[in-house]
Amino acid sequence: MEKEVTVTIGLKKGISDPEGKNVTKALSLLGFSSVKDVTVNKRYVITLDVESEEQIEQSVREMTEKLLANPVIHHYDIAW
Amino acid sequence: MEKEVTVTIGLKKGISDPEGKNVTKALSLLGFSSVKDVTVNKRYVITLDVESEEQIEQSVREMTEKLLANPVIHHYDIAW
Repeated sequence: MEKEVTVTIGLKKGISDPEGKNVTKALSLLGFSSVKDVTVNKRYVITLDVESEEQIEQSVREMTEKLLANPVIHHYDIAW
Repeated sequence: MEKEVTVTIGLKKGISDPEGKNVTKALSLLGFSSVKDVTVNKRYVITLDVESEEQIEQSVREMTEKLLANPVIHHYDIAW
């Protein structure tokens, strides 16, 4: 069966986020004074062809740790 | 009051997604044969200081169209 799994990856607290900082600055220069902070995450939508739901979590966790995220600086969240 | 708004930006259907294609290929080379497709989205988490909920939608839509997304190739989704 086909399943769509979403992996959201963001920077851990304390790791600097220059892209977010720049977006915050740019929005404020454009006149959006209500913006206090912006953080940027990445979201991978993975279509899997699996036999059972149980396989999903472990398999996607392995993918994320091997390729998509760097556990030293990123936190991630898997949802389906 | 402070509000956290999430803007998710992805490529429209029919626009090629080379990053997603490369991730799909890399995962398959790593042995994850169950992966059929990967698409990559970007997620901005914006902290706003607003007076009322009604301001949020219009203000964030304007930010997204002016700075964050390119309406020609991206679709976006605002949630809070």
